Amino acid sequence: MASQYITDLNCDMGESFGTWSLGNDAAIMPYISSVNIACGFHAGDPATMKKTVRLALEHGVAIGAHPGLSDLQGFGRREMKITAEEAYDMVVYQIGALAAIVKAEGAILHHVKPHGALYNMAAVKSELADAIAQAVHSVDEELILYGLSGSELIRSGQKLGLKVFSEVFADRTYQQDGTLTPRNLPGALITDHQESLKQVLKMVKEGKVISQQGSEVSIQADTICIHGDGATALDFAEKIYDRFKEEGIRIK
Amino acid sequence: MASQYITDLNCDMGESFGTWSLGNDAAIMPYISSVNIACGFHAGDPATMKKTVRLALEHGVAIGAHPGLSDLQGFGRREMKITAEEAYDMVVYQIGALAAIVKAEGAILHHVKPHGALYNMAAVKSELADAIAQAVHSVDEELILYGLSGSELIRSGQKLGLKVFSEVFADRTYQQDGTLTPRNLPGALITDHQESLKQVLKMVKEGKVISQQGSEVSIQADTICIHGDGATALDFAEKIYDRFKEEGIRIK
Amino acid sequence: MASQYITDLNCDMGESFGTWSLGNDAAIMPYISSVNIACGFHAGDPATMKKTVRLALEHGVAIGAHPGLSDLQGFGRREMKITAEEAYDMVVYQIGALAAIVKAEGAILHHVKPHGALYNMAAVKSELADAIAQAVHSVDEELILYGLSGSELIRSGQKLGLKVFSEVFADRTYQQDGTLTPRNLPGALITDHQESLKQVLKMVKEGKVISQQGSEVSIQADTICIHGDGATALDFAEKIYDRFKEEGIRIK
Amino acid sequence: MASQYITDLNCDMGESFGTWSLGNDAAIMPYISSVNIACGFHAGDPATMKKTVRLALEHGVAIGAHPGLSDLQGFGRREMKITAEEAYDMVVYQIGALAAIVKAEGAILHHVKPHGALYNMAAVKSELADAIAQAVHSVDEELILYGLSGSELIRSGQKLGLKVFSEVFADRTYQQDGTLTPRNLPGALITDHQESLKQVLKMVKEGKVISQQGSEVSIQADTICIHGDGATALDFAEKIYDRFKEEGIRIK
Repeated sequence: MASQYITDLNCDMGESFGTWSLGNDAAIMPYISSVNIACGFHAGDPATMKKTVRLALEHGVAIGAHPGLSDLQGFGRREMKITAEEAYDMVVYQIGALAAIVKAEGAILHHVKPHGALYNMAAVKSELADAIAQAVHSVDEELILYGLSGSELIRSGQKLGLKVFSEVFADRTYQQDGTLTPRNLPGALITDHQESLKQVLKMVKEGKVISQQGSEVSIQADTICIHGDGATALDFAEKIYDRFKEEGIRIK
Repeated sequence: MASQYITDLNCDMGESFGTWSLGNDAAIMPYISSVNIACGFHAGDPATMKKTVRLALEHGVAIGAHPGLSDLQGFGRREMKITAEEAYDMVVYQIGALAAIVKAEGAILHHVKPHGALYNMAAVKSELADAIAQAVHSVDEELILYGLSGSELIRSGQKLGLKVFSEVFADRTYQQDGTLTPRNLPGALITDHQESLKQVLKMVKEGKVISQQGSEVSIQADTICIHGDGATALDFAEKIYDRFKEEGIRIK
Repeated sequence: MASQYITDLNCDMGESFGTWSLGNDAAIMPYISSVNIACGFHAGDPATMKKTVRLALEHGVAIGAHPGLSDLQGFGRREMKITAEEAYDMVVYQIGALAAIVKAEGAILHHVKPHGALYNMAAVKSELADAIAQAVHSVDEELILYGLSGSELIRSGQKLGLKVFSEVFADRTYQQDGTLTPRNLPGALITDHQESLKQVLKMVKEGKVISQQGSEVSIQADTICIHGDGATALDFAEKIYDRFKEEGIRIK
Repeated sequence: MASQYITDLNCDMGESFGTWSLGNDAAIMPYISSVNIACGFHAGDPATMKKTVRLALEHGVAIGAHPGLSDLQGFGRREMKITAEEAYDMVVYQIGALAAIVKAEGAILHHVKPHGALYNMAAVKSELADAIAQAVHSVDEELILYGLSGSELIRSGQKLGLKVFSEVFADRTYQQDGTLTPRNLPGALITDHQESLKQVLKMVKEGKVISQQGSEVSIQADTICIHGDGATALDFAEKIYDRFKEEGIRIK
């Protein structure tokens, strides 16, 4: 009997830079199905990118570009007032850089997911979202665009006919309107692994999430983001992987 | 009657950065047949790269990547002790970045020519030359590799089966062994345009150059580098273009 | 007879970077009394800073630090969501870097004026303004803080007991509340030099400006910013310098 | 009874950058007497610098600037062909940046020690060594210059009348001529802590070291460099600290 549910587990990786190391890429890679690799603007460098691409290929993990703002010191997490055209240009550039590294390793790029402040801005600013989707489309219209479930970025990708993956988070709570509870508000993060798993299973199997207000909200969950750094990242990766297996959810 | 001689006139462009402008790209583009575009490490940024690509396409000029050392302040002209693997990685990355911009504009990349200190090191260090040629080959084996005529880089490209273009300079003098007179020595530069033209014509038509020592030396001249900045750059570009036309040399 | 009016003419300089040149520093330096030198984050580099310091000292011009956001590609003009502490840290660092160069040339630093987006944010965000004023105060409480006339930054400096210089612009129009007309609105810029001079004279002699709405508004004008780049910058610098002389306004 | 021997234990710290952490600064700080803090070119950023300065002040550790080449990705370890003037400029800039942070915390800078490739080049290239010593002298002639024992940098500092500290290494072997065994040769590193301690004690008490060739060589040992990263760094710091106490060697 074929599995009833299919999902994608993605993780941000390749976030080391030069001599500085970050994340447990090698340990977590076996548990995920797609990886978002930093492209040198907010993290990553050519050597780190190549190493991460090779690691992904060893584990049969689909490779995506993870373009970010040009802010190494702020890890691409500080919002910058960039124009839509600047967003377009920086995304094309970064996709290309990683695509060449992937190609040199004999593989092809699978998807694109903006990073940090670029991801957050693209979730709510339609002009920026359009520019990013257009950048992906211009480089290769077969690329899948990952964006926050319910976001402007998803809408922009759909408008252009791109294949899109709506992303949900295991360890973040949701509001009644389907948006994430902002990080600076109480209860934004789910620290209990069992709670996280419960939320994820409901999202994958029912397409629903219980909002912080207690109501049941519809949510599109094509891919689940898990974290690659932090003390419990590996533990949670194993737990979600095992639980999905038990529940007959295919990770692909 | 078909033209007897064919040559390529190339120029380094896209060397502006952010708010800073450099070179006469728009004025000189009509006189050249191939352009080497900086890729963001020593000069250039995503917006400048796109603008330069568009300008090249308007004029039907073949587009090449011009990867350099990661040294914006030194314009990629300060030698750095990098490993062969670092050279490989940075070249793959930069080719990819420009290739994506070119692809987004509906065209394809034509060639790769290393910049500044990377070009000079690749002329004499075989391990580095091999790594750069391998980088080009790994990304796309159809790319043409431009290198100094008689250099290690040309040999490395040939070993891998890449198509190579041996580059000569109009405004530099040569030594008896076919190498360039080092810039810090007297008589390294040819400042008289008539002298430059005479040297170039001899190189293209006879495959020979008169060395600083007075002897005639064989030289392979597949492409001629002209400069895009400086007070007389445009004037010389026009002169060489017109003279080639008179002499029946096709620029292609 | 002693001059009745005294004012300060300041200009942003040292905005070249590496091989890229910007501005007419050498030509305009004779006409100003204080200079704001970029400190390497948004423009400038150690060599450019030293050169500009030397030029200022030759002309007896008071030297100030011009710290900016860490965004070379955007020239420090793109707003970034930085914390107050990040602002404090980057301002201390940049003041120190320039102060050492000034000290090595046998002089001392005179003032600090934030650049671009940092200047604009400090005009309206009190927490950021406090952090910047605190940074100046921590490094050297004798330093004069330059800020937009009527801004939060001026208030923050005053609270700490710093000497402050309220800055006005010759070529920008003002609103009824004493703020600058935003650049993206019609009539924000005064392109006619006679108009600019008229506005400046009124600000210096009467402490008043005619707003875009036609009303007369009080304005503190301790220092006037003139521009160092653009086609007419030098011409305007000469005009304002000569006119001030005629009117008996001392530039100091 | 006063201690017969006095020495200085120094360590490179503040080598984190943005989100990336490096070294065990907090754990090792109690065991050293002077610290060399990265200044933002090869590692470190304004926030990290401030944090490290505060940590040093808590432990009464003398603070030095640790200027490096502008090569974040290569951690300042890749040699670059810079001019003596470029070296001068970058050292003045970096000293100033850290000095301001130190001053803002109510303390003053104690010394300067170049980092990585800049340190190594300054050990053998006299022109570069002179430029770096001159930079230190220009900013503040009271600053102590740290350099490799027997190096050009030490000679340059002495020529200018700077106070110099000759640095020796606990975990590196020496050649007959008093130079360090190059890292790429066998036996360059001493991995056994007892061996390291033995070497250090001999250097401090007798001013001598047993070369790799077996001969006894004179060596000036004003300060001993210990490492702040690596698995055994903390353990060795404790060992050398305790052993010095036992032997009556004052760390100051």
